[in-house]
Amino acid sequence: MNYRLMGRINAFILMGEAVFMIPPMLLCFYDGERNIALDFLLVIGILAVISGVLFLFARGARAGFYAREGLVSVGSAWILMSVFGCLPFYLSGQIPRYIDALFEMVSGFTTTGASILPEVESLSRGILFWRSFSHWLGGMGVLVFLLAIVPVGGKNGGFTLHILRAESPGPTVDKIVPRMRDTAKILYFLYLALTVLDIVFLMFGGMSLFDASCTAFGTAGTGGFGVRNDSIASFSPYIQSVCTVFMILFGVNFSIYYLVILRQFGRAIKNEELRVYFGIITVSTVLITINVRSLFGSLYEAFHHSVFQVASIVSSTGYGTSDFNVWPTFSKTILLLLMLVGASAGSTGGGMKVARAMLLFKTLKTGIRKTLYPQKVQIVRFNRQATDEKTISGLHAYLIAYALLVVFSFLILSLDGFSVETNLSAAISCFNNIGPGLDAVGPTSNYAAFSVLSKIVLIFDMLLGRLEIFPILVLFSKSTWKRV
Amino acid sequence: MNYRLMGRINAFILMGEAVFMIPPMLLCFYDGERNIALDFLLVIGILAVISGVLFLFARGARAGFYAREGLVSVGSAWILMSVFGCLPFYLSGQIPRYIDALFEMVSGFTTTGASILPEVESLSRGILFWRSFSHWLGGMGVLVFLLAIVPVGGKNGGFTLHILRAESPGPTVDKIVPRMRDTAKILYFLYLALTVLDIVFLMFGGMSLFDASCTAFGTAGTGGFGVRNDSIASFSPYIQSVCTVFMILFGVNFSIYYLVILRQFGRAIKNEELRVYFGIITVSTVLITINVRSLFGSLYEAFHHSVFQVASIVSSTGYGTSDFNVWPTFSKTILLLLMLVGASAGSTGGGMKVARAMLLFKTLKTGIRKTLYPQKVQIVRFNRQATDEKTISGLHAYLIAYALLVVFSFLILSLDGFSVETNLSAAISCFNNIGPGLDAVGPTSNYAAFSVLSKIVLIFDMLLGRLEIFPILVLFSKSTWKRV
Repeated sequence: MNYRLMGRINAFILMGEAVFMIPPMLLCFYDGERNIALDFLLVIGILAVISGVLFLFARGARAGFYAREGLVSVGSAWILMSVFGCLPFYLSGQIPRYIDALFEMVSGFTTTGASILPEVESLSRGILFWRSFSHWLGGMGVLVFLLAIVPVGGKNGGFTLHILRAESPGPTVDKIVPRMRDTAKILYFLYLALTVLDIVFLMFGGMSLFDASCTAFGTAGTGGFGVRNDSIASFSPYIQSVCTVFMILFGVNFSIYYLVILRQFGRAIKNEELRVYFGIITVSTVLITINVRSLFGSLYEAFHHSVFQVASIVSSTGYGTSDFNVWPTFSKTILLLLMLVGASAGSTGGGMKVARAMLLFKTLKTGIRKTLYPQKVQIVRFNRQATDEKTISGLHAYLIAYALLVVFSFLILSLDGFSVETNLSAAISCFNNIGPGLDAVGPTSNYAAFSVLSKIVLIFDMLLGRLEIFPILVLFSKSTWKRV
Repeated sequence: MNYRLMGRINAFILMGEAVFMIPPMLLCFYDGERNIALDFLLVIGILAVISGVLFLFARGARAGFYAREGLVSVGSAWILMSVFGCLPFYLSGQIPRYIDALFEMVSGFTTTGASILPEVESLSRGILFWRSFSHWLGGMGVLVFLLAIVPVGGKNGGFTLHILRAESPGPTVDKIVPRMRDTAKILYFLYLALTVLDIVFLMFGGMSLFDASCTAFGTAGTGGFGVRNDSIASFSPYIQSVCTVFMILFGVNFSIYYLVILRQFGRAIKNEELRVYFGIITVSTVLITINVRSLFGSLYEAFHHSVFQVASIVSSTGYGTSDFNVWPTFSKTILLLLMLVGASAGSTGGGMKVARAMLLFKTLKTGIRKTLYPQKVQIVRFNRQATDEKTISGLHAYLIAYALLVVFSFLILSLDGFSVETNLSAAISCFNNIGPGLDAVGPTSNYAAFSVLSKIVLIFDMLLGRLEIFPILVLFSKSTWKRV
């Protein structure tokens, strides 16, 4: 194991986190909240010292770096930045218990949006900013960001690829351009541009810069932390519609936008995952609109709330305009299934990803044909290209781990005595980085009532979901730390 | 496609069904229920005519027979024997609606034990006998039985293997002895012997021959249809304990019993699946006993009901002594997970099977190791032998299909408006051939309230579960019927 290079990566991450804490600190000073500002400053100091020590340790790191080290670095970096990132919540007393502060921070970075806060409007603006900003940072990947701006590991291309692979969502990583660092830069440019566009549209609807920024961070990262107690419900229908559109946009594979910029509209539109993603949104919206029609005054209103909720759940954002907990079982079931599927690979969204669900169907079809005609060679095609065996066996490993971990979490949560519906939806919602679940963790409730053990399980679920299992699993796997 | 040979197999099955209807018909005559006896006789006549026509059609069948034809034959045979087998229920008026009669019959043959009957004590003994006997017939496999006694397809060994593979539960088929027909004979001899032993033990506790036979049929097939409205609750603790022991025994791979007969105790005890099966039962029983302790008068009583329920669910029988719907969520969750796992491969039990769950864990471990050390060859071992690629890719195809079908059923059931807990547990319970679910389909309720559409979905779930998906999927797959 190349411990020094791994140390160097973690040092960069903690240093980066310190830098990102400066805006909320300044906001606190501006708002006259000196004490909270000083809490931020203290944490910035702690982060600076720790990353300094790590840099010293990492001097003269070798260049060799393998998949294993990429996974472990990503896993440890996410845990470290959550453990320290939640300190302002805790030190300021705005979240009095450390486990709750950690839950909220992990929920932020993993863009889950599950909260333990019963209400948010009384919180400091600096704290709220940091809470929402963590969605934006976690959305596209913290390490990807660093790779784009700092020469973390020198010119070692394999190194960058391993990190990108470990942190980016989806069964495969698209190299948009031959050099991975350039790919990371393009992704972040697109991400930033879309976020700014979202802020502009929201301010156009009368939102303040602060509200618009926080809401856009939550949308861009597909997180879902809001600035009001009722999420997006009390904002105007225009604002709600802007959110709907941008939630859907941030659930699209970013390489599609790159194709659009290059004016390769044909290739963009022919993308199989894109078509299925919009197909899922359309079908779900139509079914739910029909199903909830009687709950709303007009067909348009039913459609407005249905498409908002579908966009919010499929993109794994978790914003709400309506309490879908009181919707009919059929609509709730569709939303529960959308939670499982999630957004597109290569987007900021969570869940299993549409591409994986499609590959799943395709391997099943191939499996049946294999049973029928054992002598024939069967190929799984995706976007007109043959999928290699490694991708498929990786997909199967992912799904098995996914199922086992959700089931295990579901079992542990059941110790708290809430309903089966609560526990199952909490596990699915956190694992897929959605936020709200059903019943006791429905859109009008929060996760505060769970025991410490359950919160720890859910914290791991959020991390496992965001990093797509393996970085965290490998970090805690015996064979990783064996000397070879 | 070798349509003639397939016709011959279906003819044998329907003829066999006619023969098996003779005992309940005689019982009706003995009980003086002439009308119901004549209904049985009419159905026997119909079956005789149809199988006669099929035999004529099948004259001069070629010997060539492939996996595809094996799967289709098994799928169609199970559907046909259910469609005709339920006629006595319907014609006698004891189950007034055909869809309900079909549901009950499929539930019987697939050894599910899910019922649409609100009460059974007022039913004719002949009808009850046929209902329970269908569990016994379906348990070890109807086609396997025929293979054991009739030379269906001549001396073609491949043919017998394809049928046995399609109808027997588990990821692989153990050839106990080199000739498959002898294997089928040994399996049926063991099955019969254990059933007789069960009847003797039950009669020893004061049960009548009729009650003991029906209860033993339900236990042996791991079905769960009983002869009393409260299942096994009003029988003595001795009877309940006999049921517990035999439910566990019928969930064991039958090749273990063959090893025991051969006095190869060492090999039997070293079987990995056997150890895990008993491990699961022990751990679940301990956890549930602790969890439900306060609901019962003594620790022994809590243990008595816990071990009964664990045995009943893990073996996929579905008998009940206590309403586990009112047990704490943790216990209910454990039972829900036991439903998913099911009994051992090569037993009469349902579910995914312990062997598959174990292979799942093992392939996951291999998957992680592959990610860590991509250059090394990783082998999955089961019972000290390397598992071949075909078994593993078959396992993955099975699991994907399993997950997709359960999810799809869950969605369709949700149209009826029952709770998420009801719908999910109904889909899981029927797919895994358990019987009772939770909430509105809990152990004290039944499936009568579901819509016709939901009942059709659940009928397919039971068939898909019992035949382990592929025979039914292949039967309705376009590529099966394509001319090559």
